[in-house]
Amino acid sequence: MDRIKIALCQLHVTPDKEANLERAAKMVREAAAKGAHLAVLPEMFNTPISRRYMASNAEPVPGPVAAALSQLAKECGIVLVGGSFPEADGSKVYNTSLTFDKTGQQICHYRKMHLFDVNLPGGVVLRESDTVSAGSRLGLVDTELGRLGIGICYDLRFPELWLTMALRGAQIMAVPAAFNVITGTDHWHTVLKSRAMDCQTFFAVASPARDEQAPFIPYGHSLVADPWGNILAEAGEGEELVVAEIELKRIEEVRARLPLLQHRRNELYRLEWLAD
Amino acid sequence: MDRIKIALCQLHVTPDKEANLERAAKMVREAAAKGAHLAVLPEMFNTPISRRYMASNAEPVPGPVAAALSQLAKECGIVLVGGSFPEADGSKVYNTSLTFDKTGQQICHYRKMHLFDVNLPGGVVLRESDTVSAGSRLGLVDTELGRLGIGICYDLRFPELWLTMALRGAQIMAVPAAFNVITGTDHWHTVLKSRAMDCQTFFAVASPARDEQAPFIPYGHSLVADPWGNILAEAGEGEELVVAEIELKRIEEVRARLPLLQHRRNELYRLEWLAD
Repeated sequence: MDRIKIALCQLHVTPDKEANLERAAKMVREAAAKGAHLAVLPEMFNTPISRRYMASNAEPVPGPVAAALSQLAKECGIVLVGGSFPEADGSKVYNTSLTFDKTGQQICHYRKMHLFDVNLPGGVVLRESDTVSAGSRLGLVDTELGRLGIGICYDLRFPELWLTMALRGAQIMAVPAAFNVITGTDHWHTVLKSRAMDCQTFFAVASPARDEQAPFIPYGHSLVADPWGNILAEAGEGEELVVAEIELKRIEEVRARLPLLQHRRNELYRLEWLAD
Repeated sequence: MDRIKIALCQLHVTPDKEANLERAAKMVREAAAKGAHLAVLPEMFNTPISRRYMASNAEPVPGPVAAALSQLAKECGIVLVGGSFPEADGSKVYNTSLTFDKTGQQICHYRKMHLFDVNLPGGVVLRESDTVSAGSRLGLVDTELGRLGIGICYDLRFPELWLTMALRGAQIMAVPAAFNVITGTDHWHTVLKSRAMDCQTFFAVASPARDEQAPFIPYGHSLVADPWGNILAEAGEGEELVVAEIELKRIEEVRARLPLLQHRRNELYRLEWLAD
């Protein structure tokens, strides 16, 4: 496919799981009406980021959220990276992103690998690992649009994950993410642009809308970056649908100009993925 | 040492090797007079970046440039990362950075690992590998100021190199670099800030001054970034001495807030340095 329209759904998230799902469905339908081929929902699109809701909102896969997202992808005829939500698996909860093809078939089940245990300036202390367990499988998946590389938020901080997926042919990194206003202000654009520049792939990153009343205040600024690190489209802070049109051949153009993947000194260093 | 003053010497470079060396010496003396403990010269501080000068300006190590830099470090009582210059070794030429301690002893001999063979927008075509050979040894060195990690310019594009040095205890990455105006405008700040944020170390990066008449037009904007990715000091485009004061304890502060090195999933991926 020559031109791909990517939609990022920067959704407002409330404690009402059903209302969040309805709001997401509405925006994905709007994206489809605008001709989007791929839609990305934010991290924790159906649950506020707070230890209070992780266990109580968790549900298994398959389960109601998975079924609703599958139905939505099929109805809209869209590849849907369904943000993330708390997934219950036995006694464990994962921060999970499911991806569906346009027939509604689930094609990727990714669990966030790196958990956000931090102690930020301004007294923001978070310990995601208190309530969430970490996944261990790569989120690489082939779609009719190309090869997607999926990761969630704090995963962005770890270059090895993205380089591994780029070296394995990922073309579009689809990333549900929720930086908070502190790290968002200081780091969001730099991290996203530099990952795109290092991997020389597209990055499509969807954040929840900013909510100053929430315990965790998401930064917003969902954006699509191209393989040169240019920002093709970017949301503001509120609820917003962002659509960007990309051409995958841009990847080869950039790599021909600045052949980073060819210039790696594979005889000097090796990046090994151990968990296959 | 609690507080370290880092000086970046953003030097104008001409085809006159001796004049370049004199200009460098003058600026390092100025840095020392301002209390700098560490000075970093730019990439190719004594030779314009052009295939025309690589072989003709090359000289061995030990040799006249090495001797002059050693003498300068000793005279000024400063740790000197002597930018880079064309080093002749038999029939080969390397893009080489020598580092001297404040007694003038040579403590690191680093040869650029990644060579800049590109075909940039605007018709800028460069093939460094036509005239320069690539090095293969890490530029990690202990000084009385702390552990330095040394790389040169295009090396910055390869995250594995910097992560490896960070994991091996580097505290200040000292980087002679000359991005051109195209990649400088689009990428310089993003690359430098993101490497500092990923490694959670200081980055002290010295560029030649911009010269619109030169075959290769350096970007300028020499800068010091801290482990949070904040820019502590930055040059403009012309010849300029930039001094920043840092505290190494900032590294531990940032790593306590956002423990990236601890959160690496070492059981899932491994970054191996093969060339030790």
